[in-house]
Amino acid sequence: MANQMPDKSSRRNDYLHFLSLQTRWNDLDSYGHLNNARYYAFLDSAIMDYLQVLGGFDLVHGPVLPFTIENGCRFFQSFTFPDTIEVGLRVTKIGRSSIRYEMGLFKQGHTEIRAAAYFVDVFVDATSQTPIQIPTALRKHLQHILWPQQPMAADD
Amino acid sequence: MANQMPDKSSRRNDYLHFLSLQTRWNDLDSYGHLNNARYYAFLDSAIMDYLQVLGGFDLVHGPVLPFTIENGCRFFQSFTFPDTIEVGLRVTKIGRSSIRYEMGLFKQGHTEIRAAAYFVDVFVDATSQTPIQIPTALRKHLQHILWPQQPMAADD
Amino acid sequence: MANQMPDKSSRRNDYLHFLSLQTRWNDLDSYGHLNNARYYAFLDSAIMDYLQVLGGFDLVHGPVLPFTIENGCRFFQSFTFPDTIEVGLRVTKIGRSSIRYEMGLFKQGHTEIRAAAYFVDVFVDATSQTPIQIPTALRKHLQHILWPQQPMAADD
Amino acid sequence: MANQMPDKSSRRNDYLHFLSLQTRWNDLDSYGHLNNARYYAFLDSAIMDYLQVLGGFDLVHGPVLPFTIENGCRFFQSFTFPDTIEVGLRVTKIGRSSIRYEMGLFKQGHTEIRAAAYFVDVFVDATSQTPIQIPTALRKHLQHILWPQQPMAADD
Repeated sequence: MANQMPDKSSRRNDYLHFLSLQTRWNDLDSYGHLNNARYYAFLDSAIMDYLQVLGGFDLVHGPVLPFTIENGCRFFQSFTFPDTIEVGLRVTKIGRSSIRYEMGLFKQGHTEIRAAAYFVDVFVDATSQTPIQIPTALRKHLQHILWPQQPMAADD
Repeated sequence: MANQMPDKSSRRNDYLHFLSLQTRWNDLDSYGHLNNARYYAFLDSAIMDYLQVLGGFDLVHGPVLPFTIENGCRFFQSFTFPDTIEVGLRVTKIGRSSIRYEMGLFKQGHTEIRAAAYFVDVFVDATSQTPIQIPTALRKHLQHILWPQQPMAADD
Repeated sequence: MANQMPDKSSRRNDYLHFLSLQTRWNDLDSYGHLNNARYYAFLDSAIMDYLQVLGGFDLVHGPVLPFTIENGCRFFQSFTFPDTIEVGLRVTKIGRSSIRYEMGLFKQGHTEIRAAAYFVDVFVDATSQTPIQIPTALRKHLQHILWPQQPMAADD
Repeated sequence: MANQMPDKSSRRNDYLHFLSLQTRWNDLDSYGHLNNARYYAFLDSAIMDYLQVLGGFDLVHGPVLPFTIENGCRFFQSFTFPDTIEVGLRVTKIGRSSIRYEMGLFKQGHTEIRAAAYFVDVFVDATSQTPIQIPTALRKHLQHILWPQQPMAADD
C-alpha cells in the first residue's frame, strides 16, 4: 500500500485549523530531540480538538468514535523544550466511513514546516465498534477543512 | 521520612512563577482523567522552564545538573482534554546542594487548586555526577521564588 | 499532611506481589535517566495488574473504580534502556473506601531497592463517582498483600 | 513521496529480531485502546535494542547516532493492558547513510499481525550532526536482519 505524505514544500496557509501545544521537558529523548513518538500525541490532539471543541462532537461518550487505522510522519527539523508547536490540520479525503487528515507542524512564529504527517481514521459505531457511514453533521464539519478547498480547486 | 505537601488551602498567589501547558488527547487514561503520571511531566517542566528560560542556566550541557531525588502529588480535581494547566511554582527550602520546590496546578481562569505537589532536587556536578554546592548565581535565581517571601520570613 | 514513604532499607521480600516491566527507549530523558514521571506509569501498572489480572476485578467497566488521590516516590538509583524493572507491591492500610499501597522498584536480578513509592487510592462508585465502602471480595483480595502480614507478623 | 508499508499478510517469520515489551496501564487512552502514539515507543525500542544490546553500539555517547526522518504504522487490531507485545524487526534497505526498517507487532503467543510499521533512520556524525556513511561494522550488523534474506535477493 502506498501513501502520499505532505512534503517539505507544504506551507502554513495550506492548513486550515491550528492547535497550539507546548512541549514538555520529558518529551526530549537522550538526543535532546522531541522524540518521534511524541509527535503523534500532538497530531492526535489536533484532530480531537477540531472535532470536539470546534465541532461539539462527543468522541468519548457519543454514538460515533474515530479509530486511527494508519498514520505516518516525516521529520525535517526537531523541536526542543520549551517550544510552542502549532499543528496545522486539513482534510484531504472524506470516504464513506473513513477520513484522511494531513498535518504540518510549525514552531510558533516560524514559517518553515518542521514535520509533515497524515492520519487515516475510520468512524465506528460506539456500540458495535464497526465502521459506519459518517453522519451528515460530522461530514459537514470535516468538509470545512477539506483541501484543496472546493471553490478554489480549479486553479490548484 | 515525613514530607509536607502543599494542601488544598494553597492559593494562586502563594506561587511565584507560572508555566502554562496544554493537555494532550492521550494524557487521558481509560477513566477519561489526566493520568497521575502525567502530572509529573507538567511539574518537571515548570522547574526546567524557571531555571533554563528565566534563569538562562543550561541544564543539559552546563556544569551543574538537577537530579530529582523525591517527589509527590495530591490530586483534588482532574483535568480533561483540552485544558490549559497553569503550574504555579515556589521554592520552600534551599540547602547546600538540594532544593525543595512546591507546585500548585490550576485550570486557566480558575482559582481553585486542582493538584498540589513537591519536588526535591539535588544539584550535581555534570562530570562526577555527585552533589555539589549550589553555585551563587543559581542560588540567587532560586531565592527569587522562595516562599514565604523573605521580609516575612522572620516569624516563620 | 505528612506521609511516610518506604525507605532505602526496604527489601525485596518486604513486597508481596511483583510485576515485571521493561523500559522503553523514550523513557529516558536528556540525562539518559528514566524520567521521574515514568516511574509512576510503572507503579500504576502494578496496582492495576494486581487488581485486574490476579483479582479478576474489571476496573474499567465494573461498578467500582480506583481513583488515585495521592502518590509519591523517592529515587535512589536510576534505570536505563533496556532494563527489566520488577515492581514490588504491598498494601499497608485498608480504610473504609481508601487504600494505601507501597512499592519498591528493583532491577531484575538485583536485590538493592532503586526507588520506593506509595499510592493512596480511593474506590468510587462508577456511576456517582463518589467514594464507597470497599466491597468485601475486593477487600479480601487486598488483604492478601497487607504488610506487615497479620497472622504471620510475629515471626517476621 | 510514496512509502510501502508491510501489510496484513506479513507473518512472524518474516521478521528476524524480536523484542518483547509489556504494555502499561496508562498506555490506554479513553477508548481503552493502546494509543497510536505509544506504538512508536515500542517500535523505536526494537531498533535501539537491536543496535545497542545485540550489536554493542553506543548510540548515545558513540560517534554515530541514528536520527529518525520518517515513520508510519498501520493498526489492524489493538492491544490492551496487560499485554506482552513482541516487536518483530527487519531491515529492508541499507543506503549510504540511511536505513529502512520494517516492524510487525504481535501479541505474545499469537500469530496474527496486529500492527505493521516502518522507520527510516539516517546515521549522523555525533559532532557535526550531518549524515555520514554507515560504518562497516554497523552495516554488517544491519545486514544480519536484511529481508528478503540475501540468497533470494537476486531477483529483487
